[in-house]
Amino acid sequence: MKRGLFGGVFGFLGRDESARTRDLTVLAEALLSGRGQVSGVVLARKLFDDYAALPPEQWLAFLEVLAEQFGADPARLERAMAEYRSRPGPKTALVLHVAAEARRQELIRRLNRAPGGTHDLVRMREDILRHLEAHPYLEVVDADFVHLLSSWFSPGFLVLRRIDWSTPARILEKIIRYEAVHAIKSWNDLRRRLDPGDRRCFAFFHPALEDEPLIFVEVALTDEMPGAIAPFLEEDRRPLPLRRATTAVFYSTSNCQVGLRGITFGHFLLKRVAEELKLEIPSLRTFVTLSPVPGFAAWLRRERESRSSALLTAPDRALLREMDTPGSVAPASASRPLRALLTAAVAHYLLNARDASGRPADPVARFHLGNGARLERVHWMGDPSPRGLETAAGFMVNYVYDLSRIERNHELYENRGERVASRAVRRLLRRPRSPGA
Amino acid sequence: MKRGLFGGVFGFLGRDESARTRDLTVLAEALLSGRGQVSGVVLARKLFDDYAALPPEQWLAFLEVLAEQFGADPARLERAMAEYRSRPGPKTALVLHVAAEARRQELIRRLNRAPGGTHDLVRMREDILRHLEAHPYLEVVDADFVHLLSSWFSPGFLVLRRIDWSTPARILEKIIRYEAVHAIKSWNDLRRRLDPGDRRCFAFFHPALEDEPLIFVEVALTDEMPGAIAPFLEEDRRPLPLRRATTAVFYSTSNCQVGLRGITFGHFLLKRVAEELKLEIPSLRTFVTLSPVPGFAAWLRRERESRSSALLTAPDRALLREMDTPGSVAPASASRPLRALLTAAVAHYLLNARDASGRPADPVARFHLGNGARLERVHWMGDPSPRGLETAAGFMVNYVYDLSRIERNHELYENRGERVASRAVRRLLRRPRSPGA
Amino acid sequence: MKRGLFGGVFGFLGRDESARTRDLTVLAEALLSGRGQVSGVVLARKLFDDYAALPPEQWLAFLEVLAEQFGADPARLERAMAEYRSRPGPKTALVLHVAAEARRQELIRRLNRAPGGTHDLVRMREDILRHLEAHPYLEVVDADFVHLLSSWFSPGFLVLRRIDWSTPARILEKIIRYEAVHAIKSWNDLRRRLDPGDRRCFAFFHPALEDEPLIFVEVALTDEMPGAIAPFLEEDRRPLPLRRATTAVFYSTSNCQVGLRGITFGHFLLKRVAEELKLEIPSLRTFVTLSPVPGFAAWLRRERESRSSALLTAPDRALLREMDTPGSVAPASASRPLRALLTAAVAHYLLNARDASGRPADPVARFHLGNGARLERVHWMGDPSPRGLETAAGFMVNYVYDLSRIERNHELYENRGERVASRAVRRLLRRPRSPGA
Amino acid sequence: MKRGLFGGVFGFLGRDESARTRDLTVLAEALLSGRGQVSGVVLARKLFDDYAALPPEQWLAFLEVLAEQFGADPARLERAMAEYRSRPGPKTALVLHVAAEARRQELIRRLNRAPGGTHDLVRMREDILRHLEAHPYLEVVDADFVHLLSSWFSPGFLVLRRIDWSTPARILEKIIRYEAVHAIKSWNDLRRRLDPGDRRCFAFFHPALEDEPLIFVEVALTDEMPGAIAPFLEEDRRPLPLRRATTAVFYSTSNCQVGLRGITFGHFLLKRVAEELKLEIPSLRTFVTLSPVPGFAAWLRRERESRSSALLTAPDRALLREMDTPGSVAPASASRPLRALLTAAVAHYLLNARDASGRPADPVARFHLGNGARLERVHWMGDPSPRGLETAAGFMVNYVYDLSRIERNHELYENRGERVASRAVRRLLRRPRSPGA
Repeated sequence: MKRGLFGGVFGFLGRDESARTRDLTVLAEALLSGRGQVSGVVLARKLFDDYAALPPEQWLAFLEVLAEQFGADPARLERAMAEYRSRPGPKTALVLHVAAEARRQELIRRLNRAPGGTHDLVRMREDILRHLEAHPYLEVVDADFVHLLSSWFSPGFLVLRRIDWSTPARILEKIIRYEAVHAIKSWNDLRRRLDPGDRRCFAFFHPALEDEPLIFVEVALTDEMPGAIAPFLEEDRRPLPLRRATTAVFYSTSNCQVGLRGITFGHFLLKRVAEELKLEIPSLRTFVTLSPVPGFAAWLRRERESRSSALLTAPDRALLREMDTPGSVAPASASRPLRALLTAAVAHYLLNARDASGRPADPVARFHLGNGARLERVHWMGDPSPRGLETAAGFMVNYVYDLSRIERNHELYENRGERVASRAVRRLLRRPRSPGA
Repeated sequence: MKRGLFGGVFGFLGRDESARTRDLTVLAEALLSGRGQVSGVVLARKLFDDYAALPPEQWLAFLEVLAEQFGADPARLERAMAEYRSRPGPKTALVLHVAAEARRQELIRRLNRAPGGTHDLVRMREDILRHLEAHPYLEVVDADFVHLLSSWFSPGFLVLRRIDWSTPARILEKIIRYEAVHAIKSWNDLRRRLDPGDRRCFAFFHPALEDEPLIFVEVALTDEMPGAIAPFLEEDRRPLPLRRATTAVFYSTSNCQVGLRGITFGHFLLKRVAEELKLEIPSLRTFVTLSPVPGFAAWLRRERESRSSALLTAPDRALLREMDTPGSVAPASASRPLRALLTAAVAHYLLNARDASGRPADPVARFHLGNGARLERVHWMGDPSPRGLETAAGFMVNYVYDLSRIERNHELYENRGERVASRAVRRLLRRPRSPGA
Repeated sequence: MKRGLFGGVFGFLGRDESARTRDLTVLAEALLSGRGQVSGVVLARKLFDDYAALPPEQWLAFLEVLAEQFGADPARLERAMAEYRSRPGPKTALVLHVAAEARRQELIRRLNRAPGGTHDLVRMREDILRHLEAHPYLEVVDADFVHLLSSWFSPGFLVLRRIDWSTPARILEKIIRYEAVHAIKSWNDLRRRLDPGDRRCFAFFHPALEDEPLIFVEVALTDEMPGAIAPFLEEDRRPLPLRRATTAVFYSTSNCQVGLRGITFGHFLLKRVAEELKLEIPSLRTFVTLSPVPGFAAWLRRERESRSSALLTAPDRALLREMDTPGSVAPASASRPLRALLTAAVAHYLLNARDASGRPADPVARFHLGNGARLERVHWMGDPSPRGLETAAGFMVNYVYDLSRIERNHELYENRGERVASRAVRRLLRRPRSPGA
Repeated sequence: MKRGLFGGVFGFLGRDESARTRDLTVLAEALLSGRGQVSGVVLARKLFDDYAALPPEQWLAFLEVLAEQFGADPARLERAMAEYRSRPGPKTALVLHVAAEARRQELIRRLNRAPGGTHDLVRMREDILRHLEAHPYLEVVDADFVHLLSSWFSPGFLVLRRIDWSTPARILEKIIRYEAVHAIKSWNDLRRRLDPGDRRCFAFFHPALEDEPLIFVEVALTDEMPGAIAPFLEEDRRPLPLRRATTAVFYSTSNCQVGLRGITFGHFLLKRVAEELKLEIPSLRTFVTLSPVPGFAAWLRRERESRSSALLTAPDRALLREMDTPGSVAPASASRPLRALLTAAVAHYLLNARDASGRPADPVARFHLGNGARLERVHWMGDPSPRGLETAAGFMVNYVYDLSRIERNHELYENRGERVASRAVRRLLRRPRSPGA
């Protein structure tokens, strides 16, 4: 491994700063070499505190050290390879596995023993992610963090808790802060989403991250499948009497921890919440999302720019020019043919458009179809807010979580790439053309 | 890897039984290859249930499968080694690390996602331990379990809880069952240890093992350093008023989970409990154990049998023959010189006798000195019960946990092998002879 | 009021003892006259402590003081009567009401302000009850206690809690102690009643009596209406899978606090528990007791001794002599006609026999019919234990709590004295004779 | 009792309205006469619901009914008086007491059995208080409510709970609403008072009024006795490290329930909180309020208007005219002599001025001195806000709660009317004049 790869970072630091990074490195080495568990916890705590006390611009220097100096020991790795070659078998493979493990994995495990260690590791991963694109040599560090965090945030360790108006304020203020889909404007707005009898909210927590929600979902109980978001967020609403509730609408799901990006909990959350609600309110028949289609408008622009679109004909392209009038992306007053074209396009986008790995191009579709949900309905002007028009031409859709079919759908998706959709949505697709976009 | 190594086991099974093991293996492969997280949880649960439904004598067959068929993939490992050799660096080392990982590690991680998965893995490790000696090829399986369980039972994830007469019966019955040092005879006996104002008990729990204590310690609050165990277990005792308490005596520590053997929590427990008690009762000055010396009698026998004992002189050997009268191992009525000799011997045993790795021969001494405690006093006839006489010639000792010195002592022990002891105990050692036994 | 009525008690006390009672009296007067609330709480606590420190035989002396010296002030009462006479109206009536109030009522209210005061007042009422029969002048003291305790133990203040194997041991040991119907022999026996999936137990608590159950009921979930008690208490039972449970059987209800005798909670308990269970297990259709008939055998003896029995004919009397064989009160091997006669007699006893106030002679029937339950079935040899044979000729019965009819039945009982019973039980009555026994 | 007294109210009601009041009255009579406890609870709930459904202007009609028709029964009362006269003694006095009790007392007790009954009775008392001044015949109704509520809100039944940022939002929004001394402007303002490490808040709750604080106190931990309120409410404050805290400042106490006016809990709250804090933070030496002097300005105006003021001399009166400049009640720029005069006056006001019953004229002084606190210091310009200037010429004062002297001070106050003050405050009084203002 060449020094030069990382040298640049140290070059920017003054003497004092690189001295501080050296101190952290010494701490990390001491933590890693120490045999004492009790003093190890003290060292780990100190390393976190010293790291946090650094000016943020020096964090990168320490992360670089992790990448460079805390990999596997090459000499030991060579010996282990030689040994495996001479006597291949379970034990020599194990020795090789251990020798090939970057030393920072054990370092991260020992850091995790400190009180509050998990919290600080999640924060440190935020720092890694912030620098990852510009400093791709951090990828191996990130891989080690992801490996261990995935193991520690195993679904069996997560705790589902209801969030309501009796939840501690300390947690509620985080719900306000982390809501990513439909911003919560104030404590009164929050109350409108949690307190009425026909509203629910659930979050996953991890025992080592007290008072820190990992992901949460907001639910509205209704008597029909909804087609628009505005009614859910109204100020003066009469709550639906529970005895009339037939449908649970997941209208907003938010991840809370940047430092846990890529470690998904959503797969488990919606299924668990549906089961929980069914137990509380046996009259519920339908569990359904009201979801945005965040990538539609951008995808449609690319289709229009592409000469080889499998979807758009020349008359389609002419029609779409209606949308180009400044100030209105997809006006509620669109012509009937334009509306029909857009509706067919959104169905095509959701059911056929692919990302590089062949999965649904739309991230929300990817999430819910991957979870085993079924694409159920498409709603014209479901979200006519500026953002809704800008990103999705105003469309919203429903994904249905049918508890008896989730696993089967999920298998079809994972194993055969099949996207399960209702007949109604399938019918929106244009017939003559082939489904492969 | 040759099939023959393990063939023997399968040989004993009838058709039906090996069919069942094959079914489990198929489940394990499906769990490992599946991409779907939701269905994975279902598979994992089913694997545990099917395993539990097997007759116990077939568990070994499945563990053997884990050892044999769920190691690293040799071909993939070869490729990764070749790649590393051609371009050694962090990324190829990472690839090699992953390729060398036994496939059962990922299998265990996925099993852990099932509801109750951690509990079932701990039970499965009990099975491994039961067969380990007779079937040493299970060592690699055990190593993978230990690696992951250590990570999941990280001290940062443990929860300290007080155990008292207000603790749920469900947990108390486990305290009765798991007490390993001074057996609890009945619920009344338990109550005597938990309910009086001068008694405390604390246990570590893990969030994923609800209602299952991992380790617990029983504490008596006293006004002096104790020299004998019997007064603590008496039926008719007047509790000490709290305002007179100066000393917390850890008189019994028990590990609860066989399946977590080798994953130590005791290091953290006693320190945490001492801190907790200090906070509750600021008048406490001394935190001390009342501990057995379980290996003393056996060690002394070996010394007597050995011609090259560094300790025993010919007159000593003559004196010790007093103890050989049938029926009394170390009678309270021992002669003065015998008593002096035995006291010197126990000090020697604790401070100088070594196991194969050079650590204290006595397991209890190893634990407390390794924790940073100081050997404080030696008590003649501290435990005159048959078992106490049989194993330790009736001796008990105190180890002091001095909160301000724990880390320093611990470092001395870990780094220099030093065993910290009070001057009083050091003076019991015989002068002229060298300390290296 | 003449001194002589109470003088006897003081006569038995020595000097020292009556001095102590005088001290208590002085404390009580101070507490009553003091204006300071803060010091009042201290005085109240002291009074309880001094009272408890008295030898039990002196408690009566203090209770006598309460009866004699803490009544209403006669002069003040005279004035209030005169005032009311001259100007009758709401205000003068209020003044009269206050003047006629025994001073000990305010004393009891002030005692209740002490920490733990409610608990100590309940204990003091136990002392009153112990002496009430022999010392009828305590009736007025008891009336004041009952009046205030009824107000403080208002059903709106009671808290229903489930008792199970996760309940603190501190509470469970009281369940063992207070079980009055089918004695609990050990912690294992307790566990058999609480822990299996088809068992439930609920108790009422009062916030001021922490960890003290007031009344509790043990419930078995079954798939049929039960006719015998033994199967519920068996050691080796397979629990019923919950999905098959259709019936909740209240097989034992016990009052816990002697000092709250006459302040009934049972009325509310069974209804609340039935509602709670229905919510948890919607498949439950039937809520039913399995109850003893504790007064039957004694009543039947009296009928046989009475010449004017409305029930027994001469042939009946002859038949009943079968039962007089020594050693077998009501042998399982009774003749068919005897069995028919006894069955008719128990139906008659439950539906027609009256106590002095015209209510059901059987105390258990009084309780359940008064609660709005319906007498449903009569079981020959439901409890063939010696006690069951001795008190009820082995009979047990079911009372059904039909949630939709409880209030109507209860009204019929309270307002018209009607005892609601199933047609099956009614048919057991002998026709030709009139129902008024 | 003549109908005419109350007729006026009914006169205003239309037919329909008086019909509704009659329905309520019928319900009340049914509830009172019913023997069934179970149906009684249902009736009570219905009465509350029907009452709440009435238009607010009809509540008075029902309260009038309570006053008029639910008093004692005159005939029964006459009989009881006659009986007492003929045989005066404890039993006839008891009968008389019961007969003189207004029937509404039993009605209120039965209403309290309904679920949520206590809450609804407290709300009903709010209605009574609203009408009390204009309709003095409600006084007897109020007296019965006060009598029973006092008994039910006995200090032994109150629960002290800490309020902090982990408290349910449902309770916190009530803290915002009920703060009566220094208004809480927003959730952020609330957080500043609860969350920092040097802030505490405690409230009393009653088990039957879930989530409803009765009274709460806000506490600041400081290292000195404070002289001004503004620093406590600042937005950008550095919290004091706990190890430096020596003083707990009770800077705001608020009663929450209008319907419990006159039933004081504050006496117990501050003492309990001081004990609680002392336990948590043994370094605390001083427990002290920072209190307004709300009646000072008005009292001073009256003194100036009175010719016979015991305090003011002619030169004083001349000086005070400085304050009469419009726009500045007591400018921070007051002249030295004016400042001295006002300081003497506030000391005089607090220590000597009396209300009609001879107690301190200032309500806050009455509360704290009555609790056993000591008036410690007087602060010029402690609260220079418009309201502080308007009501107290900007003064604030400290009352010290010295745990070892509270009871003694309290006794002195209650029994001898003595107002305990520090020497510093006593010295502010002018010498030559007599202390009797």
